[in-house]
Amino acid sequence: MAGSDSILSLDILAEKFARLGGVGKRTAVRLAFSVLDLTDEEAEAFAEAILDAKRSIHRCPVCQNLTDREICPVCADPARDRSTVCVVQDTKSLLAIEKVREYNGLYHVLHGLISPMQGITPDRIRLKELIERVSADESVKEVIIATNPTAEGEATAMYIARLLKPSGIKVTRIANGIPVGGELEYADSYTLQRAFEGRREY
Amino acid sequence: MAGSDSILSLDILAEKFARLGGVGKRTAVRLAFSVLDLTDEEAEAFAEAILDAKRSIHRCPVCQNLTDREICPVCADPARDRSTVCVVQDTKSLLAIEKVREYNGLYHVLHGLISPMQGITPDRIRLKELIERVSADESVKEVIIATNPTAEGEATAMYIARLLKPSGIKVTRIANGIPVGGELEYADSYTLQRAFEGRREY
Repeated sequence: MAGSDSILSLDILAEKFARLGGVGKRTAVRLAFSVLDLTDEEAEAFAEAILDAKRSIHRCPVCQNLTDREICPVCADPARDRSTVCVVQDTKSLLAIEKVREYNGLYHVLHGLISPMQGITPDRIRLKELIERVSADESVKEVIIATNPTAEGEATAMYIARLLKPSGIKVTRIANGIPVGGELEYADSYTLQRAFEGRREY
Repeated sequence: MAGSDSILSLDILAEKFARLGGVGKRTAVRLAFSVLDLTDEEAEAFAEAILDAKRSIHRCPVCQNLTDREICPVCADPARDRSTVCVVQDTKSLLAIEKVREYNGLYHVLHGLISPMQGITPDRIRLKELIERVSADESVKEVIIATNPTAEGEATAMYIARLLKPSGIKVTRIANGIPVGGELEYADSYTLQRAFEGRREY
């Protein structure tokens, strides 16, 4: 009777869901079942959205932010203050900061944090691009490091501060308005705002 | 600055994820981001799996179970005992019972439970198909009702028992080996087995 209880195409779909970050086996099966509840049109739009996102989203050549335009909207915006670059670990942090509508400078997205424990060395994140950009662009006067206040976030911040010291550029760290050990992505607007106001120079 | 923080194709993808059952807005965004971590090939296979599942999966004309074959593997299996039909509320319950490898009869999948509170009347679930099938097929000697032992599950079981009474077919209910108020889908194999052994006649 082996195999008589399985629906091949559903198993395959569940397996695809399970490849997404943080999706366990049971959740994957539940999500696969709920695809069956979509209309044909919805399912087609879903599949198309996956392909579209993969096709159109790449890293902005200036700040490494994920974007579906040639240069990301922040870098392309002439109203943004080009003298400040805020360094974040990922696009989720950038979106959280943008939501506050308080910061008006540019960004640099690292796409990760240095973590010797997980074998993530400085060359595995977009650090070289930051150094090159800051060295080449004389309009940059301040680099605000806004990595999460976790062990890896602090270590990465220290590392960047040390790297940039010879350049004479002002390097600041957002204040601990964000609860220590927490994640920037989940901070409320007020806490994020306080964190920006209270930034201190290294 | 409105809109400068958004990546259109990512927002669209997140919105598609949010249409799946039990996926909140934050989870949808997280899932959309993790699609970007897939390789191009993985993303294509994911999109294809969605379309495949929708295209190939339909309800078995005999038992209403979801299947990607013409007749579902259980109904098509000549080794299954055709004198017993086990009524379940959904395919998940069926898969849970199949996993125990103890039950060797056929199934009937209702795709829902009667729930006046939620406006689900008897005509909204696959009840008519059960009655027609049982009336037309003289080999059916027993109908085992294995809906979840919740309020709706019990009410649906009672309703079916009453409907089938005139036919003279034996109608049984699986025993309360499953904790009352719980869901069949999450029962362990032993509990499910006891529930089958202890079934009682209406």
